[in-house]
Amino acid sequence: MARIVQKFGGTSVANLDCIRNVAVRVKAACDAGNQVAVVVSAMAGETNKLVDLVKQASALHDSAEYDAIVATGEQVTAGLLSIVLQSMGVNARSFLGWQLPIKTDGIHGRARIDDIDGSQAVSLMEKGHVVVIAGFQGLSPDNRVTTLGRGGSDTTAVALAAAFKADRCEIYTDVDGVYTCDPRIVPKARKIDRITYEEMLEMASQGAKVLQTRSVEMAMNFNVPVTVLSSFEDKPGTIVAAEIENMEQEVVTGIAYDKNEAKITLSSVDDRPGVAAAIFGPLTEAEINVDMIVQNVSADGKTTDMTFTVSEADFDRTIDHLDRHKSEIGFKEILADRNVAKISVVGVGMRSHAGVAQRMFKALADKGVNIQVISTSEIKVSVLISQDYLELALRALHTAYGLDAE
Amino acid sequence: MARIVQKFGGTSVANLDCIRNVAVRVKAACDAGNQVAVVVSAMAGETNKLVDLVKQASALHDSAEYDAIVATGEQVTAGLLSIVLQSMGVNARSFLGWQLPIKTDGIHGRARIDDIDGSQAVSLMEKGHVVVIAGFQGLSPDNRVTTLGRGGSDTTAVALAAAFKADRCEIYTDVDGVYTCDPRIVPKARKIDRITYEEMLEMASQGAKVLQTRSVEMAMNFNVPVTVLSSFEDKPGTIVAAEIENMEQEVVTGIAYDKNEAKITLSSVDDRPGVAAAIFGPLTEAEINVDMIVQNVSADGKTTDMTFTVSEADFDRTIDHLDRHKSEIGFKEILADRNVAKISVVGVGMRSHAGVAQRMFKALADKGVNIQVISTSEIKVSVLISQDYLELALRALHTAYGLDAE
Repeated sequence: MARIVQKFGGTSVANLDCIRNVAVRVKAACDAGNQVAVVVSAMAGETNKLVDLVKQASALHDSAEYDAIVATGEQVTAGLLSIVLQSMGVNARSFLGWQLPIKTDGIHGRARIDDIDGSQAVSLMEKGHVVVIAGFQGLSPDNRVTTLGRGGSDTTAVALAAAFKADRCEIYTDVDGVYTCDPRIVPKARKIDRITYEEMLEMASQGAKVLQTRSVEMAMNFNVPVTVLSSFEDKPGTIVAAEIENMEQEVVTGIAYDKNEAKITLSSVDDRPGVAAAIFGPLTEAEINVDMIVQNVSADGKTTDMTFTVSEADFDRTIDHLDRHKSEIGFKEILADRNVAKISVVGVGMRSHAGVAQRMFKALADKGVNIQVISTSEIKVSVLISQDYLELALRALHTAYGLDAE
Repeated sequence: MARIVQKFGGTSVANLDCIRNVAVRVKAACDAGNQVAVVVSAMAGETNKLVDLVKQASALHDSAEYDAIVATGEQVTAGLLSIVLQSMGVNARSFLGWQLPIKTDGIHGRARIDDIDGSQAVSLMEKGHVVVIAGFQGLSPDNRVTTLGRGGSDTTAVALAAAFKADRCEIYTDVDGVYTCDPRIVPKARKIDRITYEEMLEMASQGAKVLQTRSVEMAMNFNVPVTVLSSFEDKPGTIVAAEIENMEQEVVTGIAYDKNEAKITLSSVDDRPGVAAAIFGPLTEAEINVDMIVQNVSADGKTTDMTFTVSEADFDRTIDHLDRHKSEIGFKEILADRNVAKISVVGVGMRSHAGVAQRMFKALADKGVNIQVISTSEIKVSVLISQDYLELALRALHTAYGLDAE
């Protein structure tokens, strides 16, 4: 017998047939003797519909009222799933964020969870009841509804698993796990059976998009084992958990990519101490997130080129910002390239294996792919290449690291 | 300066254009120096959509979960109106039932209000803020969302007006007030400027359907003056308030009708003490509401006929019930007639004026309308006639009581 938190996303509860399918899974877990809490998202499309209403009401809407409106999506699903479970003979009861309560800070639209009172829910679970919790929402210190931001239901599920001292958190979604690479591009991609929190963070933030980054961070902090599963198929899924010493470790676990970056080069920047701070300080203040950074070796000892990447969404703001601060920063011109892609090979195994980066460079060179920028971390090597070569490069790397399925 | 509670029904907030129209009215009341609280219903159609979802989830759904789901309709409207008001420069804040809180009993689906904590809302109103309250909902003693039943937003508005010690409660709807008779049948019907609570109760329960009966009862109990107004036109509306001694009183204020009654006659019932109790006791236990009752004078001294009316909705259950208890009650046969209509002339003035009933009987006789059943109260005379004569009878009575518009 285990205590389990199960989370079902919007596509898994898109309509009443889907909700019945979810109820069957929940009931099966109960019948197997487990204590079960369920976290649900809004029915697919509902949140967008509500957000549209808010935007139509006012472009500059109040975020506290936005939260009160948008949180209704999860409220409806939680009630419907409880009703369907009851009709199957399962004792079920819905809980909204304010009812447990899930206490958050007061940052509306992207609140952070401060504390969860799990006592009532746990005592119901111990009696064999299923508690169905509306995801994505909480209660602010001044008694208002807050939302945790997009994808927040994953975070709700992991936070509840920690608060309930659950044995595991199961995230049901429309894919059956985390893959070594995007299967739409690399047909030989394999499902990963087990991945560490750190690797998952690198994969997710690089575009794997199966699990919300915040929820992985929280799972890591509270050491909650998370399983990613399909709600439409009966397959084992991917376990996201802490590193195990004697785990049979692949050197590289997976290959992630991101097409939503843009490369910016400032030419003839003064090669003096503090120039990097002069460029990136103001960008940070403007909440522009800079990813890869490369500073070329100065050719003449006086000036250098500074290259970095920002997300596509921040591109226009970044250019505008640099133009306005041109004289302070001191550079000749801005060279921009949006036709780039970042590829990252990820794996905790590379800590103890040399030559991981070299294998990447060779595989790309063999295919004639030019590397524009390189950045490395303890468990990741990322390169920026022309987007034209993205698919070719991913398939070549997938083969080079021995990830191809049989 | 006055403190006002304004309530807007579903058709008044059917879409964002309607909500903007509502916001203009609210702002005007604020700009005139009033303290304003607003109660809103769900956008027209939303509640039905949610109820359908619940019914599809399970025919025998749990009423606590029904409430959690259905209450979201008002939650969305309250948030949207707050946002629109803010965009017009009005300080506005939404409140859900649990946030004030509006404390109710735990009877889900038709909860009754026990107590309202108005302190937070009043202190905001005193600072010039508008509080926007989701109608129709409250909080049960065990921290669950309750709903007050259909039309409950009127009740919310009146209860809040009482709790806030408001000067008046304004109910905005899709008609511009209460009429002397249904204008679709009687083109000469006039809008009533002022009507007493008691008269309104008789008019409403008879089919005037402008204001929820419970809300009128509550307004009467707490002496809250209520104004019924159109949210689409700028007209004075109808004031529902206590009787004023020196009010220029019409003898008859209005004429109501109800086509949803059915007449049932039990023939050859024993004319003995206790027979009425034997018939109606079990019907009451079965929650069948009996309206008019007539017991004919016994012709032979042994048996009599017992005639009464029930609502169409209860008709089949009533017949079934009587059939099953035929031997206990003791009657020869059941005669039923669904093609009947009840007409009531209503007016507090008739207390002090003789001949009101007589004028009714004469007006109907002049048109050849046969009266099947008569019942009277202090401020009402009701007759049951064939539904075929309904329109004819209403117009004749409207003229006979001098109610026709110029």
